[in-house]
Amino acid sequence: MSIEPPAGVTRALARYVVASDFRQLAPEVVREGVRAVMHLVGCAIGGCRHETIESAWRAFAPFAGGPQATLLGRPERTDILHAALLNGIASHVLDFDDTHSTSLVHPSGPVVPAVLALAEWRPVSGAELINAFVVGVEVECRVSDVVSPSHYELGWHATGTAGVFGAAAASARLLGLTEQQTVWALGIAATQSAGLREMFGSMSKSLHPGRAAQNGLAAALMAAQGYTSAEQGIEGKRGFAHVLSRKANLEAATRGLGETRAILDNTYKPFACGLVIHPVIDGCLQLRRKLAPQAADIRRIGLRVNPLVLELTGKPTPTTGLEGKFSVFHSAAVALIDGTAGEAQYADARVRSADVVALRSLVTATSDPALRKESAEVAIELADGSRHVVFVEDCLGSLARPMTDAEMDAKFLALCDGALRPDKARHALSTLRRLPDLQDAAEAARACAA
Amino acid sequence: MSIEPPAGVTRALARYVVASDFRQLAPEVVREGVRAVMHLVGCAIGGCRHETIESAWRAFAPFAGGPQATLLGRPERTDILHAALLNGIASHVLDFDDTHSTSLVHPSGPVVPAVLALAEWRPVSGAELINAFVVGVEVECRVSDVVSPSHYELGWHATGTAGVFGAAAASARLLGLTEQQTVWALGIAATQSAGLREMFGSMSKSLHPGRAAQNGLAAALMAAQGYTSAEQGIEGKRGFAHVLSRKANLEAATRGLGETRAILDNTYKPFACGLVIHPVIDGCLQLRRKLAPQAADIRRIGLRVNPLVLELTGKPTPTTGLEGKFSVFHSAAVALIDGTAGEAQYADARVRSADVVALRSLVTATSDPALRKESAEVAIELADGSRHVVFVEDCLGSLARPMTDAEMDAKFLALCDGALRPDKARHALSTLRRLPDLQDAAEAARACAA
Repeated sequence: MSIEPPAGVTRALARYVVASDFRQLAPEVVREGVRAVMHLVGCAIGGCRHETIESAWRAFAPFAGGPQATLLGRPERTDILHAALLNGIASHVLDFDDTHSTSLVHPSGPVVPAVLALAEWRPVSGAELINAFVVGVEVECRVSDVVSPSHYELGWHATGTAGVFGAAAASARLLGLTEQQTVWALGIAATQSAGLREMFGSMSKSLHPGRAAQNGLAAALMAAQGYTSAEQGIEGKRGFAHVLSRKANLEAATRGLGETRAILDNTYKPFACGLVIHPVIDGCLQLRRKLAPQAADIRRIGLRVNPLVLELTGKPTPTTGLEGKFSVFHSAAVALIDGTAGEAQYADARVRSADVVALRSLVTATSDPALRKESAEVAIELADGSRHVVFVEDCLGSLARPMTDAEMDAKFLALCDGALRPDKARHALSTLRRLPDLQDAAEAARACAA
Repeated sequence: MSIEPPAGVTRALARYVVASDFRQLAPEVVREGVRAVMHLVGCAIGGCRHETIESAWRAFAPFAGGPQATLLGRPERTDILHAALLNGIASHVLDFDDTHSTSLVHPSGPVVPAVLALAEWRPVSGAELINAFVVGVEVECRVSDVVSPSHYELGWHATGTAGVFGAAAASARLLGLTEQQTVWALGIAATQSAGLREMFGSMSKSLHPGRAAQNGLAAALMAAQGYTSAEQGIEGKRGFAHVLSRKANLEAATRGLGETRAILDNTYKPFACGLVIHPVIDGCLQLRRKLAPQAADIRRIGLRVNPLVLELTGKPTPTTGLEGKFSVFHSAAVALIDGTAGEAQYADARVRSADVVALRSLVTATSDPALRKESAEVAIELADGSRHVVFVEDCLGSLARPMTDAEMDAKFLALCDGALRPDKARHALSTLRRLPDLQDAAEAARACAA
């Protein structure tokens, strides 16, 4: 696929979206697209009973439209715009969703809920859905790169602000919009772009991918009906790029455009906590497998970490599950005791339990600017005086050591626990894995209903 | 009503919203509140058949909920969130809505659609609705002042970005939210704040008050169900004020808070075009009344205007109605010929008609920085060599020369033309005028259905 020299960034991206075709996707792009969709759906199912979703659903249900689309993991159905909103929120509440390794956007949360809901309203094949999804992620990550790094520094949460472009692009492709309509869809997305980092730590953080999914989908639906926007929603003097950054890098939107590659830089969390804690947990689990120590045998746990770890997750005495997710001390202790770091290890009760509290008081950590954020050193001193050290170069879940399909399947099934019966969860997983071959992509969404 | 020293700007505003009470409003505030609500409804009825609304309704109707609320001027009913959206868009499509004279926000477009829709779902009195409305406008204008003037210079459209706070505050009051819930509603509003000036000239400009109305209403509905946000959505380090301005003037949010006064600085357009053109039209109409010239008698029309006039409306040869609304040349010519400047004078056909094109070719304009933007000089030279000059100090519609109730009633009825039958339009008007005495405010909304 070749792209003509663009009249402007917005139009170049629109042209790319319109020209995209499943048959031109590289096999590894398709494979990663399927993994990302399946993974995001798992995260949404895992979050679907969270109080954040319950309260959002109480708020919106009285005003919702017909039962057009699935609320993932739940028995209710609702109109496609509310499904995109609720599933987008649910995907982020556990902080367990995917991360694009260079842009640091959580790419799938705004896009998957939009295309899945749309597929339940307007029949499309699984191949068309995968193509729309990877194209949406490509646009989203490029738009994020245009405003990075000042965008984040100013206080914007790109998962919301760039996410809405991803949802709009993917929905535009799935609806078969023309180039001009796609320009409008991206412009309507631009003027709805929102999401403040101030919301971190509250339910409103998860609103960002939810609204991005819903508003991006709406942008495409509006453009399809002739609702116009500015021609240069992204690059115009008063458009997204200049207004939401100190310095716009417009060339990041179009450099190498035509190759669909952003999805290949996507990463998934094996552990249910902040990404920067992952190398420490990885090290703790390696030592536990090697030594099988009893908690009572451990005298001291020493961590050497990238400075970001203590900056973002330096809380020594967390008291809630959410605080635990952002405490490297809790994470090290609970991983050594439980031998895993899933949702259960970040339940409120587990964060407060006596054995964990006791062990985490033995954890000390030092920052080392020489360490990459994928690396960490964990040292354990046992009661017999022996000292055992492991160095993690690239933690599990990093781009260099991605989760295997089997690990991702296990994560999906664990996330379904409590929402779907085990046989239903396995059926959902196998249906999602077959997405490129499904004649009707809606089958995948319906398989995830409770 | 007195306000304790605030813990922060967001909480201070929430406290003010919760404490507000119709019985404590000054009579002139109530009077202006009623005028503003009535006027905004008229603008929405005037815009309700515009292609912008038709395409938005085509896009959203398939996904809308039950027939809970009125689409102003139309026969359809829809759920309250979509009613707020559509009526908000409709209020702005003619560029004929109100303008707050100091903040330059169009204050009623985001607020009236939210409270009217809410009143159709949860019964409230007209007095409660008026109180919620004026409080919403107060919050909206104060939030806009916090980020002015850099907010506009950066490229934001405050009718969207500040409007969502107004809709959230008004909806929170009407729902009877607690102080904490109102803090959350304002925070949820903050993280949805959006709207780019790049969209001016496209349908997406009108999306700004529409989404502001819908998302502000949603924010209050979510907060009512326990959906949380950051505590300092406005003043936090990564909150609205610092992220969407170069310099936040936080004291503007709370200075004199407790008095409800912003609505008293509201202005309404007598003419269906850009506000800066109003002094010229006023002068042209005065000369026409005095001289009753035939177009054929006019040799030359000379305008002396504030520099903003040519900057914003300097198009000498407009070809569409929308361009005509932003052409001081067309406006002067058509006002001299037709003796008025309503919607009909800005129809595509009228902008292209031979008599108007001929006369506007005789118009010249010079900028004079000494002139205020409420002032203009119009000079006409007739075929007999006589020269006639009028100087307008404060144009009709400015704060110093507000439209009378009779003029606003006439504007309302003219806007209803084509949407409501004359008897229906008069009934709608009289119902809106009685708002403070209505036991059920929904009566006012229902009276405006076609």
